[in-house]
Amino acid sequence: MTKTVNHRIVLASRPKGRPTPENFRLEEAPVPEPAEGEILCRTIYLSLDPYMRGRMNEGPSYARPVEIGEVMEGGTVGQVLRSRLEGFAEGDLVVGRGGWQSFAMFRKGDVEKIDSSLAPISTALGVLGMPGRTAYVGLREIGKPKAGETLVVAAASGPVGSVVGQIARIRGCRVVGIAGSGAKCDFVVNELGFDLCLDHHAADFPDQLRAACPDGVDVYWENVGGRVLEAVFPLLNNFARVPVCGLIAWYNATELPPGPDRTPLILRQILTRRLILRGFIVRDFAPGDFLTDVGGWIRDGRLRYREDIRDGLENAPAALIGLLEGENFGKLLVRVAPDPS
Amino acid sequence: MTKTVNHRIVLASRPKGRPTPENFRLEEAPVPEPAEGEILCRTIYLSLDPYMRGRMNEGPSYARPVEIGEVMEGGTVGQVLRSRLEGFAEGDLVVGRGGWQSFAMFRKGDVEKIDSSLAPISTALGVLGMPGRTAYVGLREIGKPKAGETLVVAAASGPVGSVVGQIARIRGCRVVGIAGSGAKCDFVVNELGFDLCLDHHAADFPDQLRAACPDGVDVYWENVGGRVLEAVFPLLNNFARVPVCGLIAWYNATELPPGPDRTPLILRQILTRRLILRGFIVRDFAPGDFLTDVGGWIRDGRLRYREDIRDGLENAPAALIGLLEGENFGKLLVRVAPDPS
Repeated sequence: MTKTVNHRIVLASRPKGRPTPENFRLEEAPVPEPAEGEILCRTIYLSLDPYMRGRMNEGPSYARPVEIGEVMEGGTVGQVLRSRLEGFAEGDLVVGRGGWQSFAMFRKGDVEKIDSSLAPISTALGVLGMPGRTAYVGLREIGKPKAGETLVVAAASGPVGSVVGQIARIRGCRVVGIAGSGAKCDFVVNELGFDLCLDHHAADFPDQLRAACPDGVDVYWENVGGRVLEAVFPLLNNFARVPVCGLIAWYNATELPPGPDRTPLILRQILTRRLILRGFIVRDFAPGDFLTDVGGWIRDGRLRYREDIRDGLENAPAALIGLLEGENFGKLLVRVAPDPS
Repeated sequence: MTKTVNHRIVLASRPKGRPTPENFRLEEAPVPEPAEGEILCRTIYLSLDPYMRGRMNEGPSYARPVEIGEVMEGGTVGQVLRSRLEGFAEGDLVVGRGGWQSFAMFRKGDVEKIDSSLAPISTALGVLGMPGRTAYVGLREIGKPKAGETLVVAAASGPVGSVVGQIARIRGCRVVGIAGSGAKCDFVVNELGFDLCLDHHAADFPDQLRAACPDGVDVYWENVGGRVLEAVFPLLNNFARVPVCGLIAWYNATELPPGPDRTPLILRQILTRRLILRGFIVRDFAPGDFLTDVGGWIRDGRLRYREDIRDGLENAPAALIGLLEGENFGKLLVRVAPDPS
């Protein structure tokens, strides 16, 4: 149907530790024709997210790994080029899991239409998509922030942490963010309205955090692990809730940290402080009023977001490698084709 | 009112690691007279429980520590000798927190009457008391065992573990116990009716446990930590629940175990398997139908218990020291005075 080729990035080899550009391979393939019940879409935005690191490993994480030679997985916003699926017409804007490629095929149930009049279509991969929904359902089901409580969230300028903190502010919490640079901290306080934001690179970060939480911590949104976890854990109050959403600090680790084994400290805190630690992923919980609530807060100006957009599919590997080191500033997206909206 | 003296055991010094007899001191004191609103009771049974080790340390655990020179804390069954409190008469049998002494004073709200026609009065400290209630409410609120699931519980012949496993059997679970000797394992299978029981001293215990749980583990009742935790954790299924009730393996530890630091393994499992780890203590939850349910199961012969009774208050320190090493076999009690019931 078209003379263009499908550019796609496949997993060339499994990384040991930090991924390198050699773990990815850019390929060209023919653009397929949709069969009955399929739609062919041109990819506009590709979402890059920390979970992708897990998919590059051999063993199962949440889901089966990406196989060697297989197109890298990823959420995408695209535009329908050709439809043989009822309810979808050429030009429709859709969100699905198209992967790291310039054209993707979808079937019924794998794709949803986006209403571009509500918000920029890129937000279907960020604040109004998987990361925003992760924040929303994780707070609703596990974090359960109450007015007057203190919530701590790391990666506070990122697409999950920024929504977590802003919802907690809307719920009446004192919110302390943690981020990886002074510029990010300024953004988190001045633009997102957190009460405070600390740079975890500071040598005295644990002391700063203790001073920032004079009443202890009631909700710790865990999306990093490592040094941040270690600093927050002693501050947790009785009955504190810890939604375990991500552990980016350890995703590239090739071995366990040196001893001693701190497991007893963690378990003892869980016991004596009667903590709840609970792991989850976005699809474990129904969205409920997510789009209504978060969409409304965006329109009211009560909830803001920031995107970090890189142009060109070929730049996706470097962008993901950087993401795992905290180099992005806001929701990381790759613009694969011009945004038509 | 009496010429006898009150024998009491006070905390003489704080243990470093394993307690020794020198950490305790047996004292004599006058038996006090009850003031208005008080009742004086003769202690019949003193309960010895793992949490007492935490109270011997300086820092707070769930509660403030026992101070040096102060009577050791503990649950007791006693008989009213003299009452100046409405609703309590001489000869009444009561349960409360009388501590390690032969006479104890109680006020309103600190003590409850026991109906000795229902079960032996010692059970008010065991299967029908704090340990049994801990098992009941922890399963109801956190473990939530469902028919067909696999539950693993350590210290399976003890007063909490034995009730956990038997309730889970009643709920239709496959139940695997873990205990510290062949005799205990025999009791757990033959008397308590668990499906299996493993001795954690076996060199190949982790392999035995894996073989014993071919469908993984849905509920792990955590009351030991240490080696058992390490063996169970990799077997936990998606959405498994871990009520964190005790960590006896580490109570005498003076330092953290050698490295590497396994914290990332624990957190990664929580995340990818979407586990719930939740610490609790018995008073965090209302008893609900505890007495009706467990009392009924005992009468029906569906729930059994075993007591390990030592005679003489002066033997309480050695008994507690042994408890922390797993030397008891069943609910550990000290008979301080003859049981009048």
